[in-house]
Amino acid sequence: MKALTNRFADLKVDALLISALPNIRYLSGFTGSNALLLVTPSGNTLFTDPRYTIQAAQETSGCVVKTARGPLIAEAAQIVKRRRLRRIGFERGRLLFDTWQRLKEALPLGAALKPVGPVVEELRMVKTPEEIARIRGAVICNSLAFEATLPRIRPGARESEIAAELEYQMRRHEAEKASFDTLVAAGPRSALVHAQPTAEPVRANQLLLIDMGATRAGYVSDMTRTLFLGKPGRKVRGMYDSVLTAQLAGIAAVREGVMAEEVDRAARRVLRTAGLDKAFVHSTGHGLGLEIHEAPRLGKKDKTRLRAGMAITIEPGVYVEGFGGIRIEDTVVVTANGCEVLTPTTKEFIEL
Amino acid sequence: MKALTNRFADLKVDALLISALPNIRYLSGFTGSNALLLVTPSGNTLFTDPRYTIQAAQETSGCVVKTARGPLIAEAAQIVKRRRLRRIGFERGRLLFDTWQRLKEALPLGAALKPVGPVVEELRMVKTPEEIARIRGAVICNSLAFEATLPRIRPGARESEIAAELEYQMRRHEAEKASFDTLVAAGPRSALVHAQPTAEPVRANQLLLIDMGATRAGYVSDMTRTLFLGKPGRKVRGMYDSVLTAQLAGIAAVREGVMAEEVDRAARRVLRTAGLDKAFVHSTGHGLGLEIHEAPRLGKKDKTRLRAGMAITIEPGVYVEGFGGIRIEDTVVVTANGCEVLTPTTKEFIEL
Repeated sequence: MKALTNRFADLKVDALLISALPNIRYLSGFTGSNALLLVTPSGNTLFTDPRYTIQAAQETSGCVVKTARGPLIAEAAQIVKRRRLRRIGFERGRLLFDTWQRLKEALPLGAALKPVGPVVEELRMVKTPEEIARIRGAVICNSLAFEATLPRIRPGARESEIAAELEYQMRRHEAEKASFDTLVAAGPRSALVHAQPTAEPVRANQLLLIDMGATRAGYVSDMTRTLFLGKPGRKVRGMYDSVLTAQLAGIAAVREGVMAEEVDRAARRVLRTAGLDKAFVHSTGHGLGLEIHEAPRLGKKDKTRLRAGMAITIEPGVYVEGFGGIRIEDTVVVTANGCEVLTPTTKEFIEL
Repeated sequence: MKALTNRFADLKVDALLISALPNIRYLSGFTGSNALLLVTPSGNTLFTDPRYTIQAAQETSGCVVKTARGPLIAEAAQIVKRRRLRRIGFERGRLLFDTWQRLKEALPLGAALKPVGPVVEELRMVKTPEEIARIRGAVICNSLAFEATLPRIRPGARESEIAAELEYQMRRHEAEKASFDTLVAAGPRSALVHAQPTAEPVRANQLLLIDMGATRAGYVSDMTRTLFLGKPGRKVRGMYDSVLTAQLAGIAAVREGVMAEEVDRAARRVLRTAGLDKAFVHSTGHGLGLEIHEAPRLGKKDKTRLRAGMAITIEPGVYVEGFGGIRIEDTVVVTANGCEVLTPTTKEFIEL
């Protein structure tokens, strides 16, 4: 919390009203679905409703909990008034217009709202050892579920059945839920970057792309593997090898001090040499933690310097319309001299 | 769409920029995760990114599709300028402050943004026969999954395993996913209105509360049943009977023309007679459709008149700390003379 209040002079605020639930969880420990957190140099106040009275007391430490039946912003405005706070920062990318307007009306004369950027998200980029342990737990759960599902994947199984089995297995391995809608796409559908699983059966001699993630103890994993139902031909195998080489080049480029865009460039360079760079239509990866997409983005123009303790994905892919798509993705943690690949699942081209 | 543009004079706008994805889906058919929809009396324009070019063309009809690599608000501002639109309504409860600010900056001189309430949500309250058919499909899927899971529920099974099985079975019955995090809470935990499933095994002679929903073909269901693992004693059976009587009284009060609060009052009155009204800490129900919580809310002060075609839940419950909770919930559709209960699952007190 110190790291946050240290920035107040810079941000020209006396207090920050945090509205994004993952940020509230990060700062206070509270996991409920309705809350506001007022951060001030002299201490923090969590506002929630009476459904969460017991839970908030159990989960938080070092902050005052106020429960109220009415709108939380009215309660927050009361404290602003009582403590004579004047410049209240709010998360401009996380607050709805309507809430902002009602908050403005509720504040006492002399208090002003100041839009503030993703300051908590910036703190969240570098994970503590405890957070890394939780991400590792989610990654292991994810891989165990993938391996438990593999024997069920054969021609005739529907994409939606495979997705259901993967999610079931993640829960069996102690996930609270899938961290995003599981993607299972066979044949030409694997070329659609955001295809949802269909009721179509997967067929022999098709590519099968699986992108999945687990949420476990609040933290997420993200993994993609591309399989082949049968014996892949030379072209498919060549594409797979290029993507894998690009993914390994991305991983090799990761270490503290490197800019995010350099990792992207390392992966992209391999695919350019293979004549596949035009088919690589997204960025190389993204941060993850309490949310599935966090800063930094490992894209073409992201100048963020990687720091030890950042958890990121490395996931180049190529997509050819009418033919199919191949993506390989691991979750890794940045270290002083490189990175640790958390994902234990093989990256050999799995033939089923 | 006519119903929406007919309100423009009233709202004092020349166009509406829709940002809430369920509203965009409702008005245009588009199901992607990144879009804006500009509604004008002379036609609509959907803005999305190139990932969705093919999908948007397939899913929408009667609206122009514009795909852009950059921010969608810049594209929308271009059209506003070209068409010389002056008063642009936006969804004040659905747009982030940051997006509103960037939109304001992008608009040409002479164009102004006007905050507008939940106008699309109001249209969505009354469902078409096609929408009711989809909700029915989700409800059936939900009940089939519940019945398929019942044989697995016995002392020793963990709450989280039961939740995983319910979700797996919903997917097996053609759900895209659970419509919300499945709630399975045994014994005293059933008294926590928002308890998440734990790794605790359920035990003999405990209440077991299950609240679940399916999303199928985009539309949702919502059902709660409370079971007993063994032979319930007189006190528990009495509470169950009171909740069931309250639920049936709620259902009996539903018909076109009645105010939402009257349905709530009918259920609450039964629990008051039983001395349990203080233990009924939430409202009697809510609308549902593309989203799990839609208007109207069947609460103490909701004056919305029910209309034929509204899909709502009826779900009174009582919660006693340290003892347990009982809730019974069906999904129903309002008709001219009453309602149709879609949920086919028995409401007898299930003893396992």
